[in-house]
Order: sequence, then structure tokens, then C-alpha cells
Amino acid sequence: MKLEVPGFVAGAVAAGLKKDGKKDLGMIFSEVPACAVGVFTTNQVQAAPVLLDKERIKAGLCQAIVANSGNANACTGQRGIEDAKAMAGAAAAALGIPEDLVLVSSTGVIGRRVNVSAIEAAMPKLASQLNASGLYDVAEAIMTTDTFPKTVSKQGNIGDKTFTVAAVAKGAGMILPDMATMLCFVCTDISARPDLLGEVLKDAVAGSFNAITVDGDTSTNDTVLLLANGLSGLSLEDVSCAEAFQKILNELLFTLALEIVRDGEGATKLVTIQVEGALNQHDAKQVVYTVANSPLVKTAIFGEDANWGRIMAAVGRAGVPINPETIDILFDNVHVVKDGQGCGKKTEADAATVLKSDRFTITIDLNMGSEGAVVHTCDFSMDYVRINADYRS
Amino acid sequence: MKLEVPGFVAGAVAAGLKKDGKKDLGMIFSEVPACAVGVFTTNQVQAAPVLLDKERIKAGLCQAIVANSGNANACTGQRGIEDAKAMAGAAAAALGIPEDLVLVSSTGVIGRRVNVSAIEAAMPKLASQLNASGLYDVAEAIMTTDTFPKTVSKQGNIGDKTFTVAAVAKGAGMILPDMATMLCFVCTDISARPDLLGEVLKDAVAGSFNAITVDGDTSTNDTVLLLANGLSGLSLEDVSCAEAFQKILNELLFTLALEIVRDGEGATKLVTIQVEGALNQHDAKQVVYTVANSPLVKTAIFGEDANWGRIMAAVGRAGVPINPETIDILFDNVHVVKDGQGCGKKTEADAATVLKSDRFTITIDLNMGSEGAVVHTCDFSMDYVRINADYRS
Repeated sequence: MKLEVPGFVAGAVAAGLKKDGKKDLGMIFSEVPACAVGVFTTNQVQAAPVLLDKERIKAGLCQAIVANSGNANACTGQRGIEDAKAMAGAAAAALGIPEDLVLVSSTGVIGRRVNVSAIEAAMPKLASQLNASGLYDVAEAIMTTDTFPKTVSKQGNIGDKTFTVAAVAKGAGMILPDMATMLCFVCTDISARPDLLGEVLKDAVAGSFNAITVDGDTSTNDTVLLLANGLSGLSLEDVSCAEAFQKILNELLFTLALEIVRDGEGATKLVTIQVEGALNQHDAKQVVYTVANSPLVKTAIFGEDANWGRIMAAVGRAGVPINPETIDILFDNVHVVKDGQGCGKKTEADAATVLKSDRFTITIDLNMGSEGAVVHTCDFSMDYVRINADYRS
Repeated sequence: MKLEVPGFVAGAVAAGLKKDGKKDLGMIFSEVPACAVGVFTTNQVQAAPVLLDKERIKAGLCQAIVANSGNANACTGQRGIEDAKAMAGAAAAALGIPEDLVLVSSTGVIGRRVNVSAIEAAMPKLASQLNASGLYDVAEAIMTTDTFPKTVSKQGNIGDKTFTVAAVAKGAGMILPDMATMLCFVCTDISARPDLLGEVLKDAVAGSFNAITVDGDTSTNDTVLLLANGLSGLSLEDVSCAEAFQKILNELLFTLALEIVRDGEGATKLVTIQVEGALNQHDAKQVVYTVANSPLVKTAIFGEDANWGRIMAAVGRAGVPINPETIDILFDNVHVVKDGQGCGKKTEADAATVLKSDRFTITIDLNMGSEGAVVHTCDFSMDYVRINADYRS
């Protein structure tokens, strides 16, 4: 389906921020001021655009998002804030709207000032070529080490009316809750109040971007923005509409989250780690993230080696009470560990077959309680190291 | 200096546990029962030899250590315990000593039964070739992905008497406190009571094996054993002797710990991460380990990229209160970040020079309090992934 939402136009240009001359500056514009909500990184070191957006979004209103790649505008102090404001100001001037209706996102290298004059110079051209199907270009413009642009869209029907949700995202590295190192912009033509819309977004993020990890590193720039312009005539205050919207938003953000993991730096496999039988939610999460971020587990997955001993070792160091003698581990439906011990060579051979697949689930049952947690992750390949050793050069 | 301690003999053979036919079974024997203390992994999943040794060492007495590589005898249940006892029994029979004076260590793949009959078959030959300079062979026999054997020794003099301390260790992967995935056996001819000797060992481990990390993974088999046979006629109850012994033990274990990091899987650099100005010890440790285990920081170091933004991001997600605007970062004595912001291209060029070295220090001053923490770590290379993806195959 097409990546178009009534009342929204978008576009992107190459402003010269990326060394390779690819698109690096994108814009999304709503014909009318839209209800706006956001979720931002929990890292205490927060980039200038994050600090700016968190202030501006309190009003619950936004008409444009301007986003760049190639530079994160993080650890840049007060000058970074001024630069982010200048980006917003240039966008506002080109669009003829108030500056405080513009939100800003940046992604790329930390600690260098963003080239504001290049952005200002590119702004008129960018504004002039905004178009209804331009969201795909925005998805391209926010890519860093991503290997493909990430876009989703879906429509819902309530009675004879239709609402549309479309979203773009980028990810690739520094992916850990809360939340992934990623940007995601969602556009919809539903009508909503900021408080309700904020709840809906939080719920969708919890089950998607906050349930993935690539490398355990959380970024300074993580941002999810949701703009709702109301043009569909359908309102979130209508219960059936709210249900339909939540369902579609959850589904779309989950799809994007999995795309981010699948496109994790150097990733060759998409693996779901599922912990069951924990005493409580905290314990379940500690175990699931310790396993999902263990370099030894991730390299074994890359090597297609059903090395469940490394999973046992990771569970044992997760810092929560466990009983090694009640742990079961399954690779898809192959039971490789029962009561803390291996199930023999036959099942390891079956498990090895599972590992050859590019998508599978590892289930760890602690058999202590009834709580669980799920995280989606990828393997750890030589390419991850190559990409990250070379990133700034 | 020679790796010999009066009253100790040692040796190693190839028992067929390693696929490559290299030495894989080592033994240390004290002519008289020695005072024995140990420090063991804090992982809740503990290998059979660890469980056995923890019981036996309560008596404070040991006359022989038998250690194998190629198999960790972990996650092997009650049969694993029986196998560890059988190893000890075979050693005791060959040496003509009581079985409960034998301690056992294993390292290698988790989750497979150790080949006890191969060990039993090799035991008479092993016992027959024990010799005063055999500790080097033991160091070779416990190697897994280590690229070189790790040995140290030193003598101390009190009046006209001399005491000797010699130690062997292995490390390579799964290195994180508490404690590193490693084995270390220390022999000395000092005389000591177990309670005092235990305190001395704990102190030495805190500043050495518990202050290093390779990959954040803690093993199921970590073991440090210290045997003191008393033949020097010098006693730990003598204050000057205790001071001299503690100093030498600290120095030797610190040297071994750094050797383990230097020989970390795929490591090309030995990096000391130092946090200063933390509000308390807990915060200092959280920050230092979050930085030291960050895959993005470690790959940047491998790439010789002074990417301090990744260090800032890791500090910000360490889960303790920090103020981004008071953080200073130095690479050796090059000030790259002041008050949370980069110090410019000139200093980054200087920092890049520091990173070309194979040993340097990264100092992070939080400027909030007066507590600090230090950890020694290595970079994260493509070889780390290659080694760990291939480990069992």
C-alpha cells in the first residue's frame, strides 16, 4: 500500500551532511497543525534536538518535523540547542509557519556541531519539493548504517470512514530499550487529544521499540514522534476507533522494530528470546536482556552453534535468583536443556538445524514462577565489528 | 626467575580431551598437605568441580590439584559431580593420598560429560612425571583459547629466610568480575592458617581478577586456589612477613590479570578505564563497567577511533545519576571532553595518537563526588567474533 496520509506531505534532499552525497535532510509537513506526542531516550546524555523537542511537544501541537542524518547534534552544549533551533527556524521560514510548531531530530556522529548553514541553504529546495508520497524519501534521509529504508502503513475503517497510519524509522546500531537508538515518525489523519494519543503511543512503543536490542547500547537521540492531523473525521475518543487505531499502531511499530533488528549492524539472524517461569517481571527482564546482550551467546548464534552452555552461564550471572536445576531451554520447539542439563547429541543436532534458519525463538523456562518477558535481537557478526570500528573514518 | 616452589612438584600430559592432541591434564602436588583457600565464581550456575572444591576447601587443607581443559564439566548435574570425584579419586590413587585432599578444576565447553576414563588412563603417566619445574606445563594444560601460557613467580626475604610464590593462570574469554572466567593456581611455601590466608587472597583478587573484563560474560568455572605448604619456615602470623607476602601476591595476581586481558579473545589493546568524581563506589563501578563492556566503545577502540561520544552515551545509560554537563574525559593525558563537550579537532588528533598505542588509559571524571573505580579491559575485534563463532566446531 502507498505511503501516503491525507493532509501530510514530505520530502528529502542531500544537504551535504553525509560524506557520500546521499539524502541527509528530510521534512514532514502537515497542512494543518497536528496533535503531537513523543517518546524519547532514557539516556541521561540527551542530544540537543531531544531536549528541544521535549520542551516544544508539551504544547501537544506540531506542524512540521525536520530531521537530518550524518550528525547527532549531541554533546554540543548550548550551541547545539541554538543549532537545533536554527534548523527549526529555517524550516519554519521556508514553510511559513511559527517556529515552535517545528520539531527537530538528528542522528549520526556524537560531539560535532551540525552544519547549520548547509541545512539553511538546502531548506528552500526541500520545502519546494514536498509531496504526498515523500515519506519514503524521509526514510532514506534518516538512514545511517541502515542498509534499507524502513516504512510501514495501514488503513482502518470505522463505518464508512477511513483513517490512515504511516510511519518511517531508522535503527541499525546502539539498539537497546529504553529505547532503541532509533528515530521513528508516525503520521495519521485521526483526530486526538495529546493525553490520549500519548497513552496509545506509549503502549505501542512498549511492545515494539522497547522490546528489541542489538548491542545493549542506548543512544542519546532516540525519538518517536506521532502526528495526528484529524483530517479523517475519526476521533480517538470513539472507543471502536481507539481500539482499531491502537491495534494498527501496535502492529506497525512492531513491524518497524523487527525491521530494525533484522537490519542490526552486521546482523544475519533475527532471534526472539523468551523467558518464562520467572518469579516477577523484573527478574524476567533481567534474564532476557542478559542473554540477549551476551556477546558469547550472540557470537554462538552467528556461528550457528547450539552452545546452550553460554545461555546457562548468562542466566546464572543475570543478578536475580535462579535455580540452575530447574531451567529448561528450547530452540523453537527443540528441547535442548531439561532441568539444567543437556538433552543429548540428538537434540543438539536438531537444534543446529533450527540455528541455520534466519529467524527462530529461544525459550528459557526458569520454572520458578509465572512471569515472562520477550525481546527480539540479532546475532553478533564480524561485520558488526567492522562497521563500528570504521564508523567515523 | 624459575617457576619452582620448594615442596611442590607439577606436570601435565595430553589425555585426549582436546581435539588437537595438546596437553590438557595438569597436576600440582605438595609433598606435605598444604593450607588451602580459594575464591570461586559468583555465577549461580556453577560447574561440578567448583561445587566439589567449595565443599572440600572448607577443611582448609589440600595436597593436590588436578585440572583439565577441553571440557568445563558444567551443567552436568549429579553425574558431573561423580565425574569430578572420579577425577580426584584417580589422582589420589596415583599419588597415594586421601581423595579429599585433592581439588579439581575444569575449563572448556559447557554441558558435556567429561571423559573420565581418558583421565583415569592418563593419570599414572601424569603422576610419574611430576617435577619441580612442572608448573609451566600446568599453565599450558589449562589453556583454551589462550594464545600463551601465563606464569609468574617471585621471592620475598624476611631476615635470612626466603619464601617463594609462583602462580599459573588461564583466561581468554568470558572475563568479567566477580570474577574473570579463569583458573589460577598459586603455590607458596609460606606457613599460614586458612582464615588469614583467605583474607590475603580475597584482597589480592579484588585488585586483580575482579578488576578486569573482556566481554562482560562471567563463567561457571572461575576458580583461584592458593596452596601454602609452610616449608619456608616463615609464617603469615609474622606481621612483616604478612605484609611482604600480601605485596608480592597482589603484584603477581595483578600481573596475571593484565596478561589475561592482553590475551583476551582477539584483543589488540589493553585499556585501563578509570572513573573519578563519582558520588559513591556503586556509581563508580556501574559507570566503569558500562563503559568497559560497551560493544560500541570496544569496537571504536579496535578501530583506533577517538569516538568519545560513545563513551558519553555509555555513561548516560549506566543507570546511576550523572550530570552530562560536568563530565570530563581524558585519553591518557589528552583532555578530549570538558564539561560534557568535545575539546575540538586538535585534541581529537592528539587522542587518535594515544589510541594507536597498544596500552593506554581512559579517564572519566564525573565531577560529582570523590569516589572512583578502575577496570582493565581490551578492545573488541573481528577475531573475537571469529573465535567465539567457531569455538565448539
